[in-house]
Amino acid sequence: MGLVVQKYGGSSVADAEGIKRVARRIVDTKKAGHQVVVVVSAMGDTTDELIDLAEQVAPIPAGREFDMLLTAGERISMALLAMAIKSLGHEAQSFTGSQAGVITDSVHNKARIIDVTPGRIRTALDEGNIAIVAGFQGVSQDKKDITTLGRGGSDTTAVALAAALDAGVCEIYTDVDGVFTADPRVVKKARKMDWIAFEDMLELASSGSKVLLHRCVEYARRYNIPIHVRSSFSGLPGTWVSNEPPQGERPMEQAIISGVSHDTSEAKITVVGVPDKPGEAATIFRAIADAEINIDMVVQNVSAAATGLTDISFTLPKAEGHKAMEALSKAQTVIAFDSLRYDDQIGKISLVGAGMKTNPGVTATFFEALSNAGVNIELISTSEIRISVVTRVDDVKPAVQAVHSAFGLDSDSDEAVVYGGTGR
Amino acid sequence: MGLVVQKYGGSSVADAEGIKRVARRIVDTKKAGHQVVVVVSAMGDTTDELIDLAEQVAPIPAGREFDMLLTAGERISMALLAMAIKSLGHEAQSFTGSQAGVITDSVHNKARIIDVTPGRIRTALDEGNIAIVAGFQGVSQDKKDITTLGRGGSDTTAVALAAALDAGVCEIYTDVDGVFTADPRVVKKARKMDWIAFEDMLELASSGSKVLLHRCVEYARRYNIPIHVRSSFSGLPGTWVSNEPPQGERPMEQAIISGVSHDTSEAKITVVGVPDKPGEAATIFRAIADAEINIDMVVQNVSAAATGLTDISFTLPKAEGHKAMEALSKAQTVIAFDSLRYDDQIGKISLVGAGMKTNPGVTATFFEALSNAGVNIELISTSEIRISVVTRVDDVKPAVQAVHSAFGLDSDSDEAVVYGGTGR
Repeated sequence: MGLVVQKYGGSSVADAEGIKRVARRIVDTKKAGHQVVVVVSAMGDTTDELIDLAEQVAPIPAGREFDMLLTAGERISMALLAMAIKSLGHEAQSFTGSQAGVITDSVHNKARIIDVTPGRIRTALDEGNIAIVAGFQGVSQDKKDITTLGRGGSDTTAVALAAALDAGVCEIYTDVDGVFTADPRVVKKARKMDWIAFEDMLELASSGSKVLLHRCVEYARRYNIPIHVRSSFSGLPGTWVSNEPPQGERPMEQAIISGVSHDTSEAKITVVGVPDKPGEAATIFRAIADAEINIDMVVQNVSAAATGLTDISFTLPKAEGHKAMEALSKAQTVIAFDSLRYDDQIGKISLVGAGMKTNPGVTATFFEALSNAGVNIELISTSEIRISVVTRVDDVKPAVQAVHSAFGLDSDSDEAVVYGGTGR
Repeated sequence: MGLVVQKYGGSSVADAEGIKRVARRIVDTKKAGHQVVVVVSAMGDTTDELIDLAEQVAPIPAGREFDMLLTAGERISMALLAMAIKSLGHEAQSFTGSQAGVITDSVHNKARIIDVTPGRIRTALDEGNIAIVAGFQGVSQDKKDITTLGRGGSDTTAVALAAALDAGVCEIYTDVDGVFTADPRVVKKARKMDWIAFEDMLELASSGSKVLLHRCVEYARRYNIPIHVRSSFSGLPGTWVSNEPPQGERPMEQAIISGVSHDTSEAKITVVGVPDKPGEAATIFRAIADAEINIDMVVQNVSAAATGLTDISFTLPKAEGHKAMEALSKAQTVIAFDSLRYDDQIGKISLVGAGMKTNPGVTATFFEALSNAGVNIELISTSEIRISVVTRVDDVKPAVQAVHSAFGLDSDSDEAVVYGGTGR
């Protein structure tokens, strides 16, 4: 019972058949006695087609008008979905982000939600309607312009509405069955998790897992909204993401390790021969930041005593590699480094699990597994509940498989490493 | 100088090239020193494609959600047009009907404009922007729902904005060069008019001319907004529609006849053997009205004295023929008529011109022309400035050509019938 927010992605509503299937699922939820708010993305490739059109008329589409354009996609899918529900004999009303009260800042193309005032949604629900809301979009607080929320915007819309409406759960429907211990395309024996803690999900999201974006999980954790990630095709229970495991649904024991993620979208830049004195590294990263490039891992080698020079390596999205190399080249006049090396043949493997805080053997097992698989490690970085390494890109697949096995995560394994406990 | 409202139809913005061409035309107007407000329709076939999608998900798409869906089309075209203008180095902002202050009643799919509050448009203009407004759509006054204006909605949006902003002219860009004395596809020698009075344009629009819809002309006449119908392809001056001919642009003389229009979209229903007594006709037309069918011409034959029975014929859109026949069949229990005849092989030819009020020979010339062309007349109806006849559909083309010639309207004719005068 209670209020449920459901979000359906573009692949779930890719065509008329998909829309009708989703409509039946929504009606089933309504029939089970829930009030239902649905957040929907644009159909299949609609957004890409709109971007393509924009590129045909203007060289660098961006800003206010680009947002106006892109939001047409959700307007189409939400209206069709409401019609499909009505044709099943249930009342439904669709709402744009603006109508739903999704208030954002004015940063077009990647706006942030600053408030949600869902008065019209509440009224529609109280009148017995299923409310369909356009994902990915809002209206700016100051200028009342249409904005879009950028990557993962629809998931974030769903979580934000769930928080504002005090929903019991935010269901994210997608084309996979839930969150897995590793990418099932890489690890055949990857296991669907029944539950994962917000904290672990955040680390997985920021280290390559694509099921949920960091931003959406962060929002859900802040407002303590349980997320249920599940398939719109199978209808089976998926993965709960929350602070605590759902009561009575699973034993109160928790694997040390939640999962293994990987990421092959990054490149590595090495600045060779940097004078090892205060301020040099700061100058390098200021040049990068001024170019509005986000970097991930950073490693500085021990200085060679003979020369007083050191090397600094960092990773960043491949897409920003060219811009970063340019920014650093320009900075060579003020930073007296020797040369730059660019390497886009790298991959990152991360092991995530809150249990590693209290289990000192985790790091050793991790490196042993990589070593046994013949994988060479180039960079290492750790957080309290994550270890990440950079390897050659060709080593990523065997590395993920080896680590997944070593921690007993394989679906046919009896060796899952668990510890008793009641909380995080 | 001053404020110009321009409207571009779907064929003018059918693809990226069209959008860029329209953008250049808009920028030229801006460069000439005008403030420019542009109303734009959905690209080419977008609306039809959306309707097709809707029919795939729901049997009878209609109402609130259908409006939400259709308005996505203008959202796409207006955003792209704004981008194209910006890429030419001029500032542009796009506005939905709601943002532009187009306030309507709540009749979805064919809403009527009840107020226009263009505060945001005015601000955008004052800040130096070209304002791009979505045609065909508004927001309902009571429920704040998205509405669409139905057929000819974008033209009406343009005229309504021109009235609210006190524009000097409303330019309607289309794929023809202006308003012609007859359909150029039927009459090769049809002449583009430089000017036509509102009153004549209203009659042409309601008797088959498709360049402007009656509704839009009626709005323009009420607020005295001159319309300039012209081609978005050629850029040549088109046809002015207004109360008075533009001063100094043409001699102060006016053809008796403005033009010849025709319409082959109607059918004729004859109710045979109706008792010739008071109230019978009323019952028939009440049955038609209750089925929400609009009829056009009505003729009642002289009663045959021997039987006391008469026949009643009327014309109506073919699309509503089936519904009308059903409604009448059902009514046969209360109206004791003999039978119904349905005929969709008819056409209507109309002669329009304010000059016919004061020129008694017009009707005679009209019927002589038809007679010389061997055209048989089935129904006749007249207004103060229009004569319409119904003929066989195959006779429409020769009839229009004959009448067009007879009144000296052919482009190579020296015989145009004119009279001197200063007003209407």
